[in-house]
Amino acid sequence: MELSLLEQAKKLFPLCRSITGNGLRKTLDYFEDLHPDLNRISFPTGAEVFDWLIPKEWNINNAYIEHLETGKKYADFSICNLHVVGYSEPINLVMELEDLKSKIYTLADQPNWIPYVTSYYQKNWGFCMSEKEKNNLPEGKYKVVIDSSLDDGFLELSHAIIKGTTTEEIFFSSYVCHPSMANNELSGPVLLSAILDYVKKTYKNNKYTYRFVLLPETIGSISYLSLNYKKMKENIISGFNLSCVGDERSYSHVQSAYGNTLSDKALSAALKGLENVKTYSYLQRGSDERQYCAPGIDLPLCTFCRTKFGEYPEYHTSADDFSVVTENGLNGSLEVMKSIIDAFELGLNPSVRTYCEPQLGKRGLYPNISKENNNERHPAQTRMDVLAYCNGENSIFDICNLTGLNLRTVVDEINILDFNDLIINNCNK
Amino acid sequence: MELSLLEQAKKLFPLCRSITGNGLRKTLDYFEDLHPDLNRISFPTGAEVFDWLIPKEWNINNAYIEHLETGKKYADFSICNLHVVGYSEPINLVMELEDLKSKIYTLADQPNWIPYVTSYYQKNWGFCMSEKEKNNLPEGKYKVVIDSSLDDGFLELSHAIIKGTTTEEIFFSSYVCHPSMANNELSGPVLLSAILDYVKKTYKNNKYTYRFVLLPETIGSISYLSLNYKKMKENIISGFNLSCVGDERSYSHVQSAYGNTLSDKALSAALKGLENVKTYSYLQRGSDERQYCAPGIDLPLCTFCRTKFGEYPEYHTSADDFSVVTENGLNGSLEVMKSIIDAFELGLNPSVRTYCEPQLGKRGLYPNISKENNNERHPAQTRMDVLAYCNGENSIFDICNLTGLNLRTVVDEINILDFNDLIINNCNK
Amino acid sequence: MELSLLEQAKKLFPLCRSITGNGLRKTLDYFEDLHPDLNRISFPTGAEVFDWLIPKEWNINNAYIEHLETGKKYADFSICNLHVVGYSEPINLVMELEDLKSKIYTLADQPNWIPYVTSYYQKNWGFCMSEKEKNNLPEGKYKVVIDSSLDDGFLELSHAIIKGTTTEEIFFSSYVCHPSMANNELSGPVLLSAILDYVKKTYKNNKYTYRFVLLPETIGSISYLSLNYKKMKENIISGFNLSCVGDERSYSHVQSAYGNTLSDKALSAALKGLENVKTYSYLQRGSDERQYCAPGIDLPLCTFCRTKFGEYPEYHTSADDFSVVTENGLNGSLEVMKSIIDAFELGLNPSVRTYCEPQLGKRGLYPNISKENNNERHPAQTRMDVLAYCNGENSIFDICNLTGLNLRTVVDEINILDFNDLIINNCNK
Repeated sequence: MELSLLEQAKKLFPLCRSITGNGLRKTLDYFEDLHPDLNRISFPTGAEVFDWLIPKEWNINNAYIEHLETGKKYADFSICNLHVVGYSEPINLVMELEDLKSKIYTLADQPNWIPYVTSYYQKNWGFCMSEKEKNNLPEGKYKVVIDSSLDDGFLELSHAIIKGTTTEEIFFSSYVCHPSMANNELSGPVLLSAILDYVKKTYKNNKYTYRFVLLPETIGSISYLSLNYKKMKENIISGFNLSCVGDERSYSHVQSAYGNTLSDKALSAALKGLENVKTYSYLQRGSDERQYCAPGIDLPLCTFCRTKFGEYPEYHTSADDFSVVTENGLNGSLEVMKSIIDAFELGLNPSVRTYCEPQLGKRGLYPNISKENNNERHPAQTRMDVLAYCNGENSIFDICNLTGLNLRTVVDEINILDFNDLIINNCNK
Repeated sequence: MELSLLEQAKKLFPLCRSITGNGLRKTLDYFEDLHPDLNRISFPTGAEVFDWLIPKEWNINNAYIEHLETGKKYADFSICNLHVVGYSEPINLVMELEDLKSKIYTLADQPNWIPYVTSYYQKNWGFCMSEKEKNNLPEGKYKVVIDSSLDDGFLELSHAIIKGTTTEEIFFSSYVCHPSMANNELSGPVLLSAILDYVKKTYKNNKYTYRFVLLPETIGSISYLSLNYKKMKENIISGFNLSCVGDERSYSHVQSAYGNTLSDKALSAALKGLENVKTYSYLQRGSDERQYCAPGIDLPLCTFCRTKFGEYPEYHTSADDFSVVTENGLNGSLEVMKSIIDAFELGLNPSVRTYCEPQLGKRGLYPNISKENNNERHPAQTRMDVLAYCNGENSIFDICNLTGLNLRTVVDEINILDFNDLIINNCNK
Repeated sequence: MELSLLEQAKKLFPLCRSITGNGLRKTLDYFEDLHPDLNRISFPTGAEVFDWLIPKEWNINNAYIEHLETGKKYADFSICNLHVVGYSEPINLVMELEDLKSKIYTLADQPNWIPYVTSYYQKNWGFCMSEKEKNNLPEGKYKVVIDSSLDDGFLELSHAIIKGTTTEEIFFSSYVCHPSMANNELSGPVLLSAILDYVKKTYKNNKYTYRFVLLPETIGSISYLSLNYKKMKENIISGFNLSCVGDERSYSHVQSAYGNTLSDKALSAALKGLENVKTYSYLQRGSDERQYCAPGIDLPLCTFCRTKFGEYPEYHTSADDFSVVTENGLNGSLEVMKSIIDAFELGLNPSVRTYCEPQLGKRGLYPNISKENNNERHPAQTRMDVLAYCNGENSIFDICNLTGLNLRTVVDEINILDFNDLIINNCNK
């Protein structure tokens, strides 16, 4: 991968993505060019996917409102693609400012930001502007143009399956249906792409099978599940929905429906000890975990964010840009996901080879002079704590939970113990 | 039912109830007149009921103390039946005030109230007065009269079984052994009577079988169980002991022995979000849950109160009257019990018909314009939360617990979803 | 037993115990003289015990540093055996003060106390002094003498098995490898000795089998387990490691690896309601629970302390003497252990004989006049609470946990109920 995660996100930023159409298509093209393992799946307009129908494909060339008297353009789509309500039908008419105003969405409490609004499943049209710009619109008549199309076409998505020595799968999903916003949602796809890269380059003989999917939110995951849910239910032991993973403000875990899956344990372990960790219950869901964890689907999946969707002021506005998303933010997310993958590939249920504590001293893994004082952390405490819970039944994630240690720390310790022949790694759940 | 709950309680108030005798008998007559389903069961004095013997039947005509010098009567039973210690043996003698005082019970910290005192299982007699009245008794000799009888007779109770399409039973119990006190305990019997009415009138083809019983506390429930406990253990899936359900101060849940029965879940769900909800552990029990949840009996039952017995100042005194019990208080209790019955009858384990989320928009159950802002509750959030947990395994009560929603809210939502053909209702536990 | 616990500890105090050698041997001799049931087990130097090798036997006659100019001796072993680093190899040389200082250990923050330091598994030597004494050492050359030996010999320990009518075992372990320190660790062995005495004298036909072991910490328990772990895993249902049980400052429970064994429940029940009770997770372990609860061994054992090792300032210093350990402290520990033994021997799963509540009044176990007031604890509440949970499934320890009552209180109540024929005791787990 030549470009950094941040550079990739910046490159993809201008495209006008939606749940269908050319912006989505070009975004998928980009990732498929990077990863030959990614393959396109298309669903034609009108196809039934569970309780839903694939909608018409939406494309748009241009949109603006023009003050007739002065010829000045406002809410110009060519300047910012958030100016038009997503899935707006084509329109070309002249209106009085007063009538037009009811079709313009703004954010009263953020007068300089343009909101992000859509109307996928009900024919509609509209514009989005900053409150300030709307208030400054000159009186008079306006030409109102939305040069869009809603035609039979396709909903598209890309997925990759990286086979392992077992059919058990680790699953990653992110979405590519948002126009020019950075954290929600270019951070997710570029992170997913980096994870795919990490698995391929680090683990030549990966034990687990990895499934990756980039799709439009909701209708995309429903479509994908409608084709694959039986196999997915059979094979997936842990999945992560990736969304809003590019800022530096916090680390967030949106739990699965009951907060008790292997993924919940894994993410909780990986975030242990990091700064500003927040755990949200499934009641605060809002992304594709809604589909993956729905009754009847019930995949063992949770959602990973830096600052959760809906919890940062710039969410779903024009201010969600590269002042929010940073290279550090994206890389912090990647480190978290790497630690989880490393734990799985290391063998999830390590077992110490000895009865009682092994003699660490003779292996140079323990200080030989014993000067135990009050309340000091023993220099080999982490090592002994990890050993104390490596019983072949606790998962590495359980060990983190039992010891309070971060997943990366535990993975590193187990590697040292393994190198010293003190551990048996078992690759079973 | 012609009279309101409050009017019924007022009508029954003057009767001198005890664990046996004519006051109890007339109270049962009243409810049997209202409900032909209620049938009398009688246990003769001396009968063995588990570890207990049915005591003699107690009846009383009159009781007072009369100051010989002035002829003035005090502690006059004909004015307030709390003046005599329950189960007092007949007495007719002349005593000095000093000797008499040791047989008069008062409440030092509530000098205007008469306490409620009984001595069922040890021959005894005594009077109850306000501290103030006792202190003002004139010096001298008193004629002391208790015109009572303790004879072989019967302990009586009434029960009804309303058959359903399954033999699984919902059970309600309350008691009718207290003399003139309103909350403890006329509120319980009139609520039970209203529940019986609700089941009969609302559910013509009720799924569940309903068992109702009105009895004297402790010895009555022990007697009833001694006849029926095998069938009750076999059939009862949820039971509620109703006591002190007439005031407006709070809603209380006295948990079953381990706090984990279907009844505990049901009551907790029904009280969720109401004002001043209090949960008490079984260690704070004190009513017939003591028998229903005893080892060997172990029915899935908890106790429902507004303000719990022992937790309001007027408890077991002459001040427990219709300044404590109100129509609003009684009706609030009825609404709670109705929501539980409605949940059972609706089908306890609803299951959504679709895979993934259903498309609510096309059914008019979801807003079509998406303007997700920060931290706002989604207009369809309640609906989506209910759907997210309708997996055919969670009970409606579990769904309340998982979502934090009140039982009535969830029942109403499931009815809407059911109407829209989105739900399969299963009437299994 | 002629001597009090405190007197025994004082008698054994001067011996220079270590993980091998004559100090340990004489300490074991002392306890074997008291208890003919105790038998010696010896492991020869070089023997393999799980991952470890039995070290050489260490003995020491004398050690000191002598200022050549003045002939004055410092760090004199004959005055305090903590002055020499445990397992120091023999040494006899002349050194400059500057060079010698690097071999002298002190406690910077406790300038008057001598620290306790060992180097069992790496050849080394050194002295321990108070910071103050070290700072006052005169300049010049010193004769440095450690008259010790490290030869092939034996690691020794003593154990006793007191047979019961079942093969299920209750296990007690303490250690005897510390030189002149009182709480850590003479309090443990004298307590264990008193428990052995209590079992023998109180229960002539004890139901359970009791296993007692006195051994050097870590290497001793590993050695003992290497011989016996299979039988121990098969039979032991509850075990207690006894350490630092002689002070009066608090009662401490160091939980088993998962905090969920019968021993954890028993100790938690026995400490309920005592003053200054502290519960420590297994992460704060540090004594032989490290071996007994290790993966693959996994005995149901927890550690009992008054103030936990590492949690009192005098720990592992010359100040751990009889200003820390008292007769009251030791006896408080003995009472705790007695209550646990009494619970086991009473029959762990009591079951009430009656259905519903028994009629306590007719047995004189309940007040006959009922004057229930607000918020007062019922005079028979403890009795009724115990009965409410005697269902034949809850252990006595569970009953303590459910009712909040101390183990001794519950044991006493069950004895009263048993005497009144209200209880069936079952001696199953």
